[in-house]
Amino acid sequence: MLGGGSWGTAVASIVAASAPTTLWARSPEVAREIDEQGRNSRYLGDVALTEGLRATSDMERAVHDADVLIMGVPSHGFREALTQAAPFARPWIPVVSLVKGLEQGTDDRMTEIVAEVLPGHPAGVLSGPNIAAEVIAGYAAAATIAMPDQSSATQLAELFRTPRFRIYSTTDVVGVEVAGALKNVFAIAVGMGDGTGAGFNTRAMVITRSLREMSRFGCALGGDPRTFAGLAGTGDLIVTCTSPASRNRRVGEQLGKGKRIDEVLAGMNQVAEGVKTVSVVLKRASELGIDMPIAAEVDGVVNKGGTAEEAYRGLLKATPGHEHHGEGW
Amino acid sequence: MLGGGSWGTAVASIVAASAPTTLWARSPEVAREIDEQGRNSRYLGDVALTEGLRATSDMERAVHDADVLIMGVPSHGFREALTQAAPFARPWIPVVSLVKGLEQGTDDRMTEIVAEVLPGHPAGVLSGPNIAAEVIAGYAAAATIAMPDQSSATQLAELFRTPRFRIYSTTDVVGVEVAGALKNVFAIAVGMGDGTGAGFNTRAMVITRSLREMSRFGCALGGDPRTFAGLAGTGDLIVTCTSPASRNRRVGEQLGKGKRIDEVLAGMNQVAEGVKTVSVVLKRASELGIDMPIAAEVDGVVNKGGTAEEAYRGLLKATPGHEHHGEGW
Repeated sequence: MLGGGSWGTAVASIVAASAPTTLWARSPEVAREIDEQGRNSRYLGDVALTEGLRATSDMERAVHDADVLIMGVPSHGFREALTQAAPFARPWIPVVSLVKGLEQGTDDRMTEIVAEVLPGHPAGVLSGPNIAAEVIAGYAAAATIAMPDQSSATQLAELFRTPRFRIYSTTDVVGVEVAGALKNVFAIAVGMGDGTGAGFNTRAMVITRSLREMSRFGCALGGDPRTFAGLAGTGDLIVTCTSPASRNRRVGEQLGKGKRIDEVLAGMNQVAEGVKTVSVVLKRASELGIDMPIAAEVDGVVNKGGTAEEAYRGLLKATPGHEHHGEGW
Repeated sequence: MLGGGSWGTAVASIVAASAPTTLWARSPEVAREIDEQGRNSRYLGDVALTEGLRATSDMERAVHDADVLIMGVPSHGFREALTQAAPFARPWIPVVSLVKGLEQGTDDRMTEIVAEVLPGHPAGVLSGPNIAAEVIAGYAAAATIAMPDQSSATQLAELFRTPRFRIYSTTDVVGVEVAGALKNVFAIAVGMGDGTGAGFNTRAMVITRSLREMSRFGCALGGDPRTFAGLAGTGDLIVTCTSPASRNRRVGEQLGKGKRIDEVLAGMNQVAEGVKTVSVVLKRASELGIDMPIAAEVDGVVNKGGTAEEAYRGLLKATPGHEHHGEGW
């Protein structure tokens, strides 16, 4: 049995598992609707959720006999939800994060929070190009699950897998988490280009060079370069940068059209994770001695009053070097 | 001074160089129009080409005092054009291919043809996400130039570079050439998904797993995995799979809508390179003992009478394994 906490889209992944699942939701109304009507109308419209999915706002009920804990809460609520769940969690059970972001203040990855709140529990992450609405609608999609050891990654992959939701496995927890957090930053960069009217060439260039910047950062933290070329890196960045649905890309697009960041954010009811992540990433990069020119230009626009046009002009001033070893972007 | 042979879009790259350039064109009419009016209306519409660009259909005039030979002809015309140019080429000058394909019959890469026809001349390749019309229109774009040694790669990169056409350099000639040839095969695979109505998740999945398949093949031939994660691999595949302009993607799209390959090809006046490349690639892969399930499904549809729907169904039957080491796709 699975227990998971979710405010929203994570439901898509959870319901893909074939074992009976109990979902925890913060809101009693959402929990009741899911439990009684098999719907989550606030986040997923009229979609019929998997038969037999249970939901509750009572954490103890959701967690006490779960064999796996799946965390689908936003990064800012992760520690609190996990702390609430911790007293009820059975020993040794793995914790799988679905979160793409870092914790504000501590700069922790989600599995680092698990290590603090539930030490001894193996902690991993599931990530990939997974627009929830498309997964639910039954379109084929793929993701990768990273666990500290390959055999639990393989077993958990089986749990999530359906014929149309292809789960690969890896042990590169750091790489998958870093890729998920950073792609939002780079989606803003790509969106800025789109907003200024750049073409397909420019977009492919910024995505590709962003992947290299992401990979350089992630490898310095211990990630595997192949992860950034994989589903959680390349795959998720492609979907985030080409689907009109991506919040972070849309933020960039509006910046590219000349809006200031405060105007853009005022018009949104959900926060775009990339806006919060970029300064954390740049601080870490500077500690690691890594140059991140694309992320720095995003920071210049979202945190320092620069314009997207200035950002792109700045990037184009830099002379390219060796494609793999060169300094700069 | 540069001399290059071109039927068409290669002009975009050639005119980016700041040195005086003489273009060879097979057709005297095209050469005259470029030389006298600075236009190539057949391929590039009303675009004004770079001031000072010369053109001729006389190979000797184009080549005899060129310091670099840039080959922008289709793969099936490469050997013939180079053989025509060879008697006039000054000794030691490098030859740069702009071609994305393999030679029919011999399965040679273009630089392998150069080694046969002009032995002793360093041979390399320039490739990346470069839709010609966008490069000409001044949108920012990037490409990578690969030469057998880094110092000539660096020097040639400077020759092609403009503030908006960013040229990176590398010594991975094999990787860049293989990436350019294979992306057309995988663009057909992605197009088939689009045609059957798959979503953004599916597209990102197929692109990402295609890149791994391309990388596995290219590395077996001596390429560098980072090349496939770079502009000639990931970058070019993204632009080919997301821009409506790509011929190979469009072929796949129509196959995905249920047309047979002969109907699709009958409706086109130019050949889609991927259709010719796929069987060559599979033959090589089988010699190398490499599994290429995505390419095999493309082959099944374009050469063996299968349907795109069967191809996707076949792919979805395979169970995913380890993201980096797994068998299959």
